[in-house]
Amino acid sequence: MPTTSLTKLPTRAPADYHKTTTLRELKKLRQELIGLQDRLYAENRHSVLVVLQGMDASGKDGLIRRVFSGINPQGVRVQAFKEPTKEELAHDFLWRIHQQTPARGMIQVFNRSHYEDVLITRVEGLITTEEARRRFTAINAFEKLLQQAGTTVLKFYLHVSEKEQQERLQERLTDPTKQWKYEAADKQKANQWPQYQVVYEDVFQHCSPTTCPWHIVPADQNWYKAYVVALALRDALVKLNPQYPENPKTGS
Amino acid sequence: MPTTSLTKLPTRAPADYHKTTTLRELKKLRQELIGLQDRLYAENRHSVLVVLQGMDASGKDGLIRRVFSGINPQGVRVQAFKEPTKEELAHDFLWRIHQQTPARGMIQVFNRSHYEDVLITRVEGLITTEEARRRFTAINAFEKLLQQAGTTVLKFYLHVSEKEQQERLQERLTDPTKQWKYEAADKQKANQWPQYQVVYEDVFQHCSPTTCPWHIVPADQNWYKAYVVALALRDALVKLNPQYPENPKTGS
Repeated sequence: MPTTSLTKLPTRAPADYHKTTTLRELKKLRQELIGLQDRLYAENRHSVLVVLQGMDASGKDGLIRRVFSGINPQGVRVQAFKEPTKEELAHDFLWRIHQQTPARGMIQVFNRSHYEDVLITRVEGLITTEEARRRFTAINAFEKLLQQAGTTVLKFYLHVSEKEQQERLQERLTDPTKQWKYEAADKQKANQWPQYQVVYEDVFQHCSPTTCPWHIVPADQNWYKAYVVALALRDALVKLNPQYPENPKTGS
Repeated sequence: MPTTSLTKLPTRAPADYHKTTTLRELKKLRQELIGLQDRLYAENRHSVLVVLQGMDASGKDGLIRRVFSGINPQGVRVQAFKEPTKEELAHDFLWRIHQQTPARGMIQVFNRSHYEDVLITRVEGLITTEEARRRFTAINAFEKLLQQAGTTVLKFYLHVSEKEQQERLQERLTDPTKQWKYEAADKQKANQWPQYQVVYEDVFQHCSPTTCPWHIVPADQNWYKAYVVALALRDALVKLNPQYPENPKTGS
């Protein structure tokens, strides 16, 4: 992928998308997803890994709710990656990630992921640029391994504008249903906006092979980003074209 | 590594090695290993992965006993990899392996390993040569990831002659302490000797970067192979030079 300047990429839906019609489309997509997931699970041959990254308050949690609610939870698992534990830090950075990759038939959602190990670690100065480069290589090999084992890897960056992010973080302080999400660290991280954009751009440059690209999703409007992710997931599942297996007893 | 013709490599100790003196050396090495392992564990910074491969009856179990007995088991773990379970087969071939890699401070021994997935699978015709090549690439990237996280990876192939193997398999049928190891499959596998040599040679050619070479260990004599592995492990630990950390309370 050529160098990406995030500031030049849109954070809002194209002008011809409207909330009401898009939400209607999203509802249809969700119905399709329910059927496709059921066949994926029954066929037990392929799997899907959805990687969600984005700045704090870019709406990862809400997106998961909007896209995956209604799908049979037996076939969908969400894994949130927080600060690594002591045991996790005693291993290579992909150790805890690899354990959570989807089995055949499953859709696995990563709320944050192995990419944190080349994002926050760099902004906080915990790793050198050289180490980040080595990790990029390891990440590309890892995702290729998953793909070769039958996993479709979909990577989404929820791209919010700095302004929108500031407003959302502010809301966390005042909305009683959102206060629990507020951490003192949020304020500090918000101030590191430019640093995060730089390391994200580096990720998009080095970890976006044509076989496993990043989707940069305009994310200022919740309805639009949910639609974009649901659409990409639907298309990926349609491509896998999962089929109910024949009943071995009846042969039909 | 250039093409290796296994049949040209020795399966017995060089003429100037004698059993009694070598066993005395092995005893000394084990004492050194005990001290080095204790410091490795205390320092909690590096780890060691010992990968053991070899034909059936090449003496992997006995070697583990001879080299690692006496070392504090708190710092040494042995993992035997058998036929994959249904759950393991539902993931990429490195999934179950990655979970067993050593934490900092630990020595981990793999009795068989991820290499089975490019050995028995090929002899049994379960994967194509093309798939084997892809797995070689994945294995090299995986081992590099471990090394970059501070793990020393030592790979040993226990090289027994076909004649010695046949005798040992025969012994399994008559020695009451060894009968439990005999499987009907052994006989079949013994007959596949030439096929195994070919796929092993392919592994040594493709998965032996200078930073992570295979050690081909002459393995017809149990005393010699234990000595060779203990020596390589001792040297690797000396290179890591683990130190007891300063006592944070006394500063000494």
